Amino acid sequence: METYTLNVAGLQRELPKVKIHDELAIASFVMFGDTELIETCAEQLVLQEGFPAKDEIDILCCPEAKAIPLIHAVARILGKDYVVARKSVKGYMTNPVIEKVQSITTIGAQTLVLDISDLKKLHGKKICIIDDVVSTGGSLVGLEKMLNKYGTIVCKAAVLLEEAGYDKDDVIYLEKLPIFKL
Amino acid sequence: METYTLNVAGLQRELPKVKIHDELAIASFVMFGDTELIETCAEQLVLQEGFPAKDEIDILCCPEAKAIPLIHAVARILGKDYVVARKSVKGYMTNPVIEKVQSITTIGAQTLVLDISDLKKLHGKKICIIDDVVSTGGSLVGLEKMLNKYGTIVCKAAVLLEEAGYDKDDVIYLEKLPIFKL
Repeated sequence: METYTLNVAGLQRELPKVKIHDELAIASFVMFGDTELIETCAEQLVLQEGFPAKDEIDILCCPEAKAIPLIHAVARILGKDYVVARKSVKGYMTNPVIEKVQSITTIGAQTLVLDISDLKKLHGKKICIIDDVVSTGGSLVGLEKMLNKYGTIVCKAAVLLEEAGYDKDDVIYLEKLPIFKL
Repeated sequence: METYTLNVAGLQRELPKVKIHDELAIASFVMFGDTELIETCAEQLVLQEGFPAKDEIDILCCPEAKAIPLIHAVARILGKDYVVARKSVKGYMTNPVIEKVQSITTIGAQTLVLDISDLKKLHGKKICIIDDVVSTGGSLVGLEKMLNKYGTIVCKAAVLLEEAGYDKDDVIYLEKLPIFKL
């Protein structure tokens, strides 16, 4: 399998190249379980230029599921809590709100779901969104739109890797990730 | 909403009671985002009687998704890596293996999925399964069966909360959680 060598936060990892469609491949970054990478990247991310100061954030928020270890690591370092926007309605939810978003790695539209108890934690708060990779920005924009709709203030989004396809400069990131045109 | 007061690891939380079916309600425990609870419980769990010594575990494993922050916290404390068994086949997987399991909080059967790259990390290794709650034990048994099938040695399962419905004593847990017959 062809790989891409990622250098991030002083660490090196081989990422498999995965074909997304006929004309495009991406370096697949799944950091689940790589404790050293997650912790080291979290430490670097909060020190990154532009990352909000501790008193500029009340709470963190991420989309399920790949970003969960990273947001937990960042939250522990900052001493903050966080909310996970789920990908589907769960049995424990009493009053879920749903937002449809587009993602590069999920075929078709995906949904982001917050329960009423999540919205209570977020309401009127200053939020920093944390994610692993921003590609088209679909998930990020969807989550930000959803959070704004329900009365929160998104002050910043921070991700580990920004894929070359992302063309805005509103996101704090550690490294750029190339995309591969086939 | 009726709640149940949980005391765990010196902390107190109000859990909403959720009706599972006509005759049964459970205390819904979703620790996503409760950084203090997750970190404090992780510290307690690794000190719990019966929890394997550091050299008795090579790697940790959990089912997606609620246990991810907990397994990450435990992994950081122990200096270990971990594998997350996903609930569905993902785009990054090249050769996924699937196991069907029963869960109390998910209607019908759910699936656990490991990719070939996960199995490589697990093969021949001593594994400690980490989960948030064990109820019927369906997910736990399914995951253990799956891991054994693919050449790993499950040495112990550790959970934060054991629900009253679980009748075996093969699991390390911090607290018991009652179930409520209606």
